[in-house]
Amino acid sequence: MTHPTAHTVADALDALRETTPLVQSLTNVVSANFVTNVLLAAGASNAHIDNVHEAAAFAAVAGGVLVNLGTPDDGTAEAFVLAADGAVAAGTPWVLDPVGVGGLPWRTSLAADLLTRRPTAVRGNASEIVALAGLGSSTRGVDSSVDSKDAVPAAIALLDHADAVSASGPIDYLVGRGSSGPVGLTVGGGSPLLTKVTTTGCSLGALVAAYLAVTPDSLTGLTAAHTHVAVAAELAEHTSSGPGSFSVAYLDALASVTPDDIRARARIEPLEL
Amino acid sequence: MTHPTAHTVADALDALRETTPLVQSLTNVVSANFVTNVLLAAGASNAHIDNVHEAAAFAAVAGGVLVNLGTPDDGTAEAFVLAADGAVAAGTPWVLDPVGVGGLPWRTSLAADLLTRRPTAVRGNASEIVALAGLGSSTRGVDSSVDSKDAVPAAIALLDHADAVSASGPIDYLVGRGSSGPVGLTVGGGSPLLTKVTTTGCSLGALVAAYLAVTPDSLTGLTAAHTHVAVAAELAEHTSSGPGSFSVAYLDALASVTPDDIRARARIEPLEL
Amino acid sequence: MTHPTAHTVADALDALRETTPLVQSLTNVVSANFVTNVLLAAGASNAHIDNVHEAAAFAAVAGGVLVNLGTPDDGTAEAFVLAADGAVAAGTPWVLDPVGVGGLPWRTSLAADLLTRRPTAVRGNASEIVALAGLGSSTRGVDSSVDSKDAVPAAIALLDHADAVSASGPIDYLVGRGSSGPVGLTVGGGSPLLTKVTTTGCSLGALVAAYLAVTPDSLTGLTAAHTHVAVAAELAEHTSSGPGSFSVAYLDALASVTPDDIRARARIEPLEL
Repeated sequence: MTHPTAHTVADALDALRETTPLVQSLTNVVSANFVTNVLLAAGASNAHIDNVHEAAAFAAVAGGVLVNLGTPDDGTAEAFVLAADGAVAAGTPWVLDPVGVGGLPWRTSLAADLLTRRPTAVRGNASEIVALAGLGSSTRGVDSSVDSKDAVPAAIALLDHADAVSASGPIDYLVGRGSSGPVGLTVGGGSPLLTKVTTTGCSLGALVAAYLAVTPDSLTGLTAAHTHVAVAAELAEHTSSGPGSFSVAYLDALASVTPDDIRARARIEPLEL
Repeated sequence: MTHPTAHTVADALDALRETTPLVQSLTNVVSANFVTNVLLAAGASNAHIDNVHEAAAFAAVAGGVLVNLGTPDDGTAEAFVLAADGAVAAGTPWVLDPVGVGGLPWRTSLAADLLTRRPTAVRGNASEIVALAGLGSSTRGVDSSVDSKDAVPAAIALLDHADAVSASGPIDYLVGRGSSGPVGLTVGGGSPLLTKVTTTGCSLGALVAAYLAVTPDSLTGLTAAHTHVAVAAELAEHTSSGPGSFSVAYLDALASVTPDDIRARARIEPLEL
Repeated sequence: MTHPTAHTVADALDALRETTPLVQSLTNVVSANFVTNVLLAAGASNAHIDNVHEAAAFAAVAGGVLVNLGTPDDGTAEAFVLAADGAVAAGTPWVLDPVGVGGLPWRTSLAADLLTRRPTAVRGNASEIVALAGLGSSTRGVDSSVDSKDAVPAAIALLDHADAVSASGPIDYLVGRGSSGPVGLTVGGGSPLLTKVTTTGCSLGALVAAYLAVTPDSLTGLTAAHTHVAVAAELAEHTSSGPGSFSVAYLDALASVTPDDIRARARIEPLEL
């Protein structure tokens, strides 16, 4: 696997806009609207199909599937498993976003079960990645209490179950499986205002699912989503005066960012593992 | 039935603002917030009552009911039926929005059941209208893959079950029952940005429920909602730089649009059937 | 208990920003996103944990809990009780927001049950407060049909169950338990546009839960939340041209309001009881 660069990410953005991949999102009620608006703005499409009757079958026609553990109940938890298995059976890439895993035992065991079903990619904050790998547990609600860099060993451990893993933070740490062992990189940029608008992380997970549908390998898809978000957030911050206006500008920027913007502004660095 | 015009629609807007009809929405989790904000901005009111204990009784006190199939589960699916039957029993108009019908068998049979309970109006995209009429099935997730005009025969067929039916698209196609057979019209205008903000269609369906509470016949109510939305979207586009700012400007425009704006900007044309 | 003033409220804002209390919200699907964004903007944090497996345990680690009856179903209704009992057992303050109580029998009996579990504070509109106290029932959907001032006797009656109670309206009426009987005050300001954006009331209830985590007594926490919201809304109105832009400006203002703004603009008046 070649290391994803600003150029491969720019190509991925072109591919996203050309093919408008359809994401199936099984995501929490806090994020449902914003996740869809982020996908539409970025250039993808979304259907929130999370009932037990339709989750598995739809995973076969979707371009990518997001399973986000933010607000599970017994019904959606069952649908998560059905969608994950449906995705794997159909060869559809799927993303696990282990929101709140660590501090909450029920969803932590749900996440452990889902992990055995082999997500294509896992995206979380550092606390969640550490907890999901079984290397600790310090999640405070749904926010991270671990520095992203410290989640790298956990992310590498999770490559036993997933093709690519990321821990989001001020700098994002991403790892993937290379031909001779794990490959890593960081994505910088973004904006501190991303932490003041809810479900920006959830919608990044959804965008990973969209990019996995149009990229040749999982680490490239993961990198493209993180980079698209980071560049858009950086641009949006310039025209924002708080979290409300940032949220609006962020959606505008996700839509207006061009491949040239990506090539000029992406901050992708190799990470020694 | 006289053919609705810009003038009858302008009168309907006056009536909406004067009476602030209360809509009961049973709608998907993606749309719940935006649907309510659209209704409040336009001049109506909303209560999202979709549990099995309250759905039927509330339909008797609401001015109009929206049943939207976007994210059903077993509980809300049961509530849909209760609300529909409660609305019919009480003489409350109700709107069926068959989101995703066609490609998804479970909700397609749910929609077929609901159709037998005689919605006052049906609003969908062209694919959904075609599928609901049993004339084909080509829905891709929740987006349409059929041109709106091609849904007109399906819309006419659905008049066996509903008083008025619309297929949304770049141009909206609306049909209703006239004294000597079906009557049709188109509503133009709007903005391509409507497709880049999620649940603009769902919230149009909710606005139909609001207008049905204040208009003398169903096609007028349907036409008023489509026109209010089209004129507001056109105005909003002028001050938008992307989907985020469009969404904000759209809510502002729904609130600021006057009957004079409707008379000046409505693009309602008769449709030969 | 000393009467809360603009100065104690300004101190509470400092405390909120310094400690970032974590709210557990069990709130309706219409409000889920906005509630969280309001909390983040104001300076708190939120986790929407409303499933029966996690609701009770999380109430022990949260700084405050919001139980909002906007869109209950059988599962969340059970979680409400678990969270309330978990909060009381752990000494975590919790807020009851009785949305729609009065007109809807099922949730009214649910609210009556929750009231016996001793919420720290109750926040509702005037109709809901009157209905919850068993003094009448005139809720129209989820909007109030009673003037806030007329809810004061009901609010005082509810002090048998809660430490502090508020009825929101153009002017908010707040009561708490003093050493020699009930103490009352009013909070003015705000903006009529608050009624044109959905779930501003729900998010105020959530902010009460946040402030209860950082204030010495319940009436101070309740007053701080009402005042923060009123000052932010007043500032936001200046830069708004409708409900869409108000909603954005409101989030910005919740974040930018300083303790000095509170001291200069708070409109807190004592209320003779």
